[in-house]
Amino acid sequence: MTRLRFHRSLDDLKEKLLVMAGMAEQAIQRAVEAYRVRDLSICDLVDRGELAINRLEREIDQMALDLLAMEQPMAIDLRFILAVIKINADIERVGDSANSISDRVRELQAFPVAEMPVDIPRMASLAESMVRKALQSFIEADANIAESVLSMDDSVDRMNEAAYFALLNVMKTEPHLAPQALNALMIARILERVADHATNIAEDVIFWVRGADVRHHMLETEQTEPKQV
Amino acid sequence: MTRLRFHRSLDDLKEKLLVMAGMAEQAIQRAVEAYRVRDLSICDLVDRGELAINRLEREIDQMALDLLAMEQPMAIDLRFILAVIKINADIERVGDSANSISDRVRELQAFPVAEMPVDIPRMASLAESMVRKALQSFIEADANIAESVLSMDDSVDRMNEAAYFALLNVMKTEPHLAPQALNALMIARILERVADHATNIAEDVIFWVRGADVRHHMLETEQTEPKQV
Repeated sequence: MTRLRFHRSLDDLKEKLLVMAGMAEQAIQRAVEAYRVRDLSICDLVDRGELAINRLEREIDQMALDLLAMEQPMAIDLRFILAVIKINADIERVGDSANSISDRVRELQAFPVAEMPVDIPRMASLAESMVRKALQSFIEADANIAESVLSMDDSVDRMNEAAYFALLNVMKTEPHLAPQALNALMIARILERVADHATNIAEDVIFWVRGADVRHHMLETEQTEPKQV
Repeated sequence: MTRLRFHRSLDDLKEKLLVMAGMAEQAIQRAVEAYRVRDLSICDLVDRGELAINRLEREIDQMALDLLAMEQPMAIDLRFILAVIKINADIERVGDSANSISDRVRELQAFPVAEMPVDIPRMASLAESMVRKALQSFIEADANIAESVLSMDDSVDRMNEAAYFALLNVMKTEPHLAPQALNALMIARILERVADHATNIAEDVIFWVRGADVRHHMLETEQTEPKQV
């Protein structure tokens, strides 16, 4: 495989990861929409989408493995491929989170609709924008964008904590609404985990980009002072 | 690096991963003990342990990366190294789960002790044994042991579901106990996620062991029928 071909394969890998990320993002959007309008047919869509996401995860792992096996990638490409493998696992779990929300919506169907003191769509949109930004930092190999994702995580944590206490209060004061409050609380926690996955992705991008620098400096040092093995 | 040295390095990598897994397992045990006896000093131990686990995670990633960079591992070793990288991430998250339990225990301190209809220590011991078995399947490269982990996951899911409905019932019928019930429910969910991490590890072992076979057959086929690239 020529160097050019190898780099084209890396681009294909990146492209595939972005397709999968788009599917995971759409799954979260759909699941939250299913919650908002209590529509089980949207839940079905989310569940079917999961199969496609899982298939893509395995394909990406295999592509990454093949690239490592066929080539002897340079350190910087190696770090990129490893970042892909790790990001791949996180995106798959974002897809899983969408299914967990869809499970909650199904359970909620047994109970009357009740207004809850938590803005799930707003939390979801913040968590989604973190995932998008984390992927942007990956595409642009930009550790600064990745760092901005880490600081966004605090907002989601705060929203989740506020939701927790508000919903606990509903349980205490209006116990007949406990099932609805508990489900809303669970969905808020799932969205907090989506934000955590975005944070993991951002950390992997930082490890990849900064580590590539570190590795570069190490190699320069080695030229003057051979490493003892 | 000689082939022998390379294999010794793979053993070191495995050894380090097992040390980290032992620490994560201990963290879960401690966090559950902190819950059982409501002892915040144990929570402090758990929190301090997390730093060591996170440090080991980065060291293992770096070792794996160095092995990939210095050598051109054969397909089977490559799959092993990738399995290590993925298992590493899951073990680190088991450590995180211990911290999440410890956070719950701290919050519980504000409320009187109340008996809850969920056997957290039993659930924890099942989740821990899944993690141990998943690691055993990894050490012994045994896909059958890994498969047995997958079937154990159903038991944990069932225990978690039973806990969910029993605790929801506490919230509805004894709303003054809602905080204690909610915290117990959260801890049950965290333990279910620990079991999920064990499942992820087992799946990675299956991918590694079975995939190695598949790859081997592919290479044999290629000798008679060259692959079109």
